[in-house]
Amino acid sequence: MSSRFTVTYHVRGTSADIEARARAIAVEQSVEMPLEAIRDETVLSDIVGAVEGIDDLGGGFFAVRIGLATATVGHDSGQFLNMVFGNTSLQDDVVLRDIEVPEALVQTFGGPRHGIAALRSRLNVDSRAMTGSALKPQGLPADDLAALAEKLAAGGLDFIKDDHGLADQTYSPFAKRVRACAAGVARGVRATGHPTRYVPSLTGNLDQLRTQARLARDTGLDCVMLAPMVCGFPAMQAMVHDFPDMAFFAHPSLGGASRIAPELLIGKLFRLIGADAVIFPNFGGRFGYSPETCRDLAHNARGTGMRSALPVPAGGMTLERTREILDFHGKDTMLLIGGNLLMAGDRITENAEQFSRAVADYV
Amino acid sequence: MSSRFTVTYHVRGTSADIEARARAIAVEQSVEMPLEAIRDETVLSDIVGAVEGIDDLGGGFFAVRIGLATATVGHDSGQFLNMVFGNTSLQDDVVLRDIEVPEALVQTFGGPRHGIAALRSRLNVDSRAMTGSALKPQGLPADDLAALAEKLAAGGLDFIKDDHGLADQTYSPFAKRVRACAAGVARGVRATGHPTRYVPSLTGNLDQLRTQARLARDTGLDCVMLAPMVCGFPAMQAMVHDFPDMAFFAHPSLGGASRIAPELLIGKLFRLIGADAVIFPNFGGRFGYSPETCRDLAHNARGTGMRSALPVPAGGMTLERTREILDFHGKDTMLLIGGNLLMAGDRITENAEQFSRAVADYV
Repeated sequence: MSSRFTVTYHVRGTSADIEARARAIAVEQSVEMPLEAIRDETVLSDIVGAVEGIDDLGGGFFAVRIGLATATVGHDSGQFLNMVFGNTSLQDDVVLRDIEVPEALVQTFGGPRHGIAALRSRLNVDSRAMTGSALKPQGLPADDLAALAEKLAAGGLDFIKDDHGLADQTYSPFAKRVRACAAGVARGVRATGHPTRYVPSLTGNLDQLRTQARLARDTGLDCVMLAPMVCGFPAMQAMVHDFPDMAFFAHPSLGGASRIAPELLIGKLFRLIGADAVIFPNFGGRFGYSPETCRDLAHNARGTGMRSALPVPAGGMTLERTREILDFHGKDTMLLIGGNLLMAGDRITENAEQFSRAVADYV
Repeated sequence: MSSRFTVTYHVRGTSADIEARARAIAVEQSVEMPLEAIRDETVLSDIVGAVEGIDDLGGGFFAVRIGLATATVGHDSGQFLNMVFGNTSLQDDVVLRDIEVPEALVQTFGGPRHGIAALRSRLNVDSRAMTGSALKPQGLPADDLAALAEKLAAGGLDFIKDDHGLADQTYSPFAKRVRACAAGVARGVRATGHPTRYVPSLTGNLDQLRTQARLARDTGLDCVMLAPMVCGFPAMQAMVHDFPDMAFFAHPSLGGASRIAPELLIGKLFRLIGADAVIFPNFGGRFGYSPETCRDLAHNARGTGMRSALPVPAGGMTLERTREILDFHGKDTMLLIGGNLLMAGDRITENAEQFSRAVADYV
């Protein structure tokens, strides 16, 4: 008997053709060839995708549930993506909507190694929401970013992350930047007594990611950020395995979320491969996600079955919205405010303090 | 003076708001913060994206050209994607349409190491189009796939590739499969005298990709296939660098091509990071690409500025369409026919021979 897991696609179609279209997707995402040409009974019974159900969503859209064989995934998170959406991602009538991740794959990929509880413990934060900001703009030399990091840390924030555009550019090489910003944050920590964490952004191939993570570790850091869609799921999976003491923040860059539902990609899959915190563009900012999408994404990140990942609403958030965002997302959340904190150049620390207080005082 | 390169986005909007939207994209894809909060003159002049032009395409769509600073890319192909489409991929009014890749980045990434001319030379094929098929379905044990590989090779095909679903699954582990299939193809080669190449599909993280590529090389193979969107651009870039004698076939899996124009992603970017051959879903098969998209994609793959990559139209092609596809794409093309060749189970070699002859006889 073969073990299967259910993948839900939203498909544009008509009542007349949806059954055939569903069967075609089941074939495309498994054996990718005409069934008439398959003579192996085991392949036909255990490997070919099976249509498990079709629901008419109205408006010319259908929810198609397909059972895929767990055996086709192996142990590679890239192959997992390949099996659930590889070729079908090229067909524009289909959105990958959800996956019921089976226990076998939860065991394989492991989910967050730390998650919300461990992040709270590191920061000595019991129950309030957590706070964060970002080092910007890219193009600044390392010392200027470090000065900014110190100002933000002096405001008592929990996390200060690199902007995801910061890589290993000549105007601010990774090693120099990370050492300088870590020192900047450490100066802020000495002023406040609060153990603010600096979260550098890692880029490049697996060799480069490892070199950068080792440098971060040797600098005394215990959090890093990766963009799984840029570095690739397999690289993220390997990093989570190789650096068990690091907490991993996942950045949504290149998430192209209109074709893979962000609730699934960011909330569920980034968590599955080990993200301890997942950054996403919250509603009402510069991005078009709906409140429902953001709620479901955060719900998926915190859900049962593996450690909870910390949802990090971001993308144009403002100080003024602190209460509203916490009302909506609750306290198992990290608020990330970047550009808005940086607007008043001479009062960055005061802005950060105000942000820290607003979150601490929230009831 | 800063060096810039031009990225073209197609944006849904109105005449009234498109200028502001274009400026917002330019900021999002560079400094990602309010310009009012930036005090560094060099960042403002050299790093912030610049709107270079807006064309009304009609129907509520606009072509927006933005100049991004080459210095923000560094030397990492992942960071390149991050800078051209990282956050904006999350905004569903924008499609990444084209990039004028500057000479500096062509030098950095290098394009195909072999390309069409070297592939022709390896196969002793002067001017005719090239042929290929795929080993399917996944779920078969290695020996069955090897028997299929021998039958196809006996038909005189040029390339026999793994189906992209074949990974390192327990029912057909990579090492066993590759050795068996290479031996199967070698038996076919002894029968025909034609130097058919077996192209295994590599999966996993960079360590695993390297182990698999070394095994392929030690088995006497000189072609491999990768899916750059699954393994990640940085891993593909590293592999092309590490295995200079290998020819790399790029598979479009997870290409999600409705948000990044396939002409750009598959034709231009896969080539830029070193693909010697680019597989794409041709029009009239199981995928919805238009003839114009396929023509432009192939044109980009073969274009000037670096070695030409071999366009490989695929995705439900049939023997009957050989002439039509060659009329359309010309002879600097590899025809890939998978499932259709496998339909007549007992006559696979005859089908492959017929395919080989049809391409050889084409004038």
